[in-house]
Amino acid sequence: KKLRIAVIPGDGIGKEVMPLGVSCLKAAALKFDLSLEFTEFDFASCDYYFKHGDMLPKDWKSILLGYDAIYFGAVGMPDLVPDHVTLWGSLLKFRREFDQYISLRPCRLMPGVPSPLRNKKPGDIDFWVVRENTEGEYSSIGGKMFENTDREVVCQETIMTRIGVDRVLRYALNLANSRPKRHLTSATKSNGISITMPYWDERLKALTKEGNYADLNIDKFHIDILTAWMVLKPEQFDVVVGSNLFGDILSDLGPACTGTIGIAPSGNINPEGRFPSLFEPVHGSAPDIYGKGIANPVGMIWAGQMMLEHFGFKDAALAMLKAIEEVLAKGEPHILTPDMGGSTGTTKTLGAAIERNILG
Amino acid sequence: KKLRIAVIPGDGIGKEVMPLGVSCLKAAALKFDLSLEFTEFDFASCDYYFKHGDMLPKDWKSILLGYDAIYFGAVGMPDLVPDHVTLWGSLLKFRREFDQYISLRPCRLMPGVPSPLRNKKPGDIDFWVVRENTEGEYSSIGGKMFENTDREVVCQETIMTRIGVDRVLRYALNLANSRPKRHLTSATKSNGISITMPYWDERLKALTKEGNYADLNIDKFHIDILTAWMVLKPEQFDVVVGSNLFGDILSDLGPACTGTIGIAPSGNINPEGRFPSLFEPVHGSAPDIYGKGIANPVGMIWAGQMMLEHFGFKDAALAMLKAIEEVLAKGEPHILTPDMGGSTGTTKTLGAAIERNILG
Ligand SMILES: CC(C)[C@H](C(=O)O)[C@@H](O)C(=O)O
Ligand SMILES: CC(C)[C@H](C(=O)O)[C@@H](O)C(=O)O
Repeated sequence: KKLRIAVIPGDGIGKEVMPLGVSCLKAAALKFDLSLEFTEFDFASCDYYFKHGDMLPKDWKSILLGYDAIYFGAVGMPDLVPDHVTLWGSLLKFRREFDQYISLRPCRLMPGVPSPLRNKKPGDIDFWVVRENTEGEYSSIGGKMFENTDREVVCQETIMTRIGVDRVLRYALNLANSRPKRHLTSATKSNGISITMPYWDERLKALTKEGNYADLNIDKFHIDILTAWMVLKPEQFDVVVGSNLFGDILSDLGPACTGTIGIAPSGNINPEGRFPSLFEPVHGSAPDIYGKGIANPVGMIWAGQMMLEHFGFKDAALAMLKAIEEVLAKGEPHILTPDMGGSTGTTKTLGAAIERNILG
Repeated sequence: KKLRIAVIPGDGIGKEVMPLGVSCLKAAALKFDLSLEFTEFDFASCDYYFKHGDMLPKDWKSILLGYDAIYFGAVGMPDLVPDHVTLWGSLLKFRREFDQYISLRPCRLMPGVPSPLRNKKPGDIDFWVVRENTEGEYSSIGGKMFENTDREVVCQETIMTRIGVDRVLRYALNLANSRPKRHLTSATKSNGISITMPYWDERLKALTKEGNYADLNIDKFHIDILTAWMVLKPEQFDVVVGSNLFGDILSDLGPACTGTIGIAPSGNINPEGRFPSLFEPVHGSAPDIYGKGIANPVGMIWAGQMMLEHFGFKDAALAMLKAIEEVLAKGEPHILTPDMGGSTGTTKTLGAAIERNILG
């Protein structure tokens, strides 16, 4: 089984961490005799935008349909191009048009990485965020009226569909059902956001009655207090499901509680495999540290690990995860990047250490 | 100068903490010879709803217009009445119809209250959240179509107006300008939410050019990474301004980082004084602990302190804040409530200790 991977480094530190992600995947391929084929593209970047006036070539869809997966760095140079132009012109378009309706994001406190939370040890923070990834608050419908007057008014729709809500809730219910703790937490805000969020709650209630989830432990928290609990008692979470926006927030906050968002990966998944799925770090292009060579490559490498896992290369995926864990656990300050407890390593020292571990 | 205060305990622990709030205010009135007049109302509660089929009497507006301020507990019994019914029938109606367009919420790590964050001491976390409190994501516009079919679709508008956005941004700019650090952080999500949030950014940019804010230090963070920074480096915040939803989230997360949301107060302010302003704890009715007498009364008492401050009773407000700080700083486990480091005190022991301190 050959895996055809479209490699899109994008902007900023995306370009710095991508080479390490690819070399770790190549190491895993060598070690486990996998057939991985990498093809790199320069589109979905600001460089491409400056040259062509667009983030993507006209035929991007047919190009990328030729691949099983997209391995994606990060996009955006907000000082030069507004973020919504770059993101809606690339990443958000992929998610929507390739119907990658599940965003799957692990939050796990790793040995060797100090948590900003007092008294937490590996095992205390270990949950998955399942995020709706195609609709909800990330709509493109709305507009402006009475421009440049005191009456100016701006609207944007949040749109949820039965199909969209049910499928992500079902995915999360099934994921929770398959884990030892069997615990699902739903993020809502049905006290304040009075139409879409009560609908979200209602669908969860309806689906749980379908029968397979009889003794599943299901909680529902408003997003405000849920963020508070993530800091006060992260042990309570197992699988957390949220709308596009709430999942976005929780999957930055969760990794922050595990020490740095630099290590967190993200799968943008089309479960039916009708379209390529996309794997990326949770972090963005980080213009503030770009060029220094100190970006944490673990999010990118771990995203590669999720990609192998997703396509059923279990042994290789396990070895990659073990490599990440072992290198972090050693906690060598000259190897780890500065975001982890003020270490002095670089993107390359850390990435290379993980690569060696996979090979060794 | 007499202050006429409408007292609305509401539901759940609102009814438990309110008496302590009132007795601390009475203590401050006695000590500083203030004329405070309290009138208690049973509406804006589920008890009232069960009796009358509505959260409020028809003439609630003219009743409350007879008061300078509303001192509000908490509302909601989600197991019996959906939260959006109780909240839009009371608190959110007050905010909207009394044009309490500023929600002001201090986040301060208090001596004696352990933070869940490692190595933080009082002074490290000390910022204000300024939240837009009348529009934005909390609109009541939207609906459902193709009900009970696979095509079912649910929409809700986010609506921002020039008037609404400018006035809250100006308030936050001025607040930041008046503080020693002179630092404003704006919460946005203009990379993903592509119409309303870029507008928010645009207005901030326009207002800062008006001239008075020349050397004010202004940051802008997307809400996802902003929640991460709140955990990783809360020292960096001074004044944080956000939309209705983002302000809501940040003002639960911030207090959680200071140990418990039980101590956090909130002013819902109509700055022009055309309508009564409303002061309440940030926490809700907490059905899970209602009836046990262990709810933290500090949020309620501190909200009373903000009320005195708002109406210019500076000495009394200072004394109340000092009383809260001193009682917390003593850290007596038989006085403090369980939410603070597992203490064994009650609503009454803690409230009474603060009352005594104000008097003494
Ligand atoms: C109860 C709820 C509607 C309210 C809000 O979302 O505004 C509360 O969370 C708050 O922060 O005051
Ligand atoms: C870059 C941005 C549009 C994106 C999002 O909001 O989805 C990012 O924050 C993420 O979490 O993948």
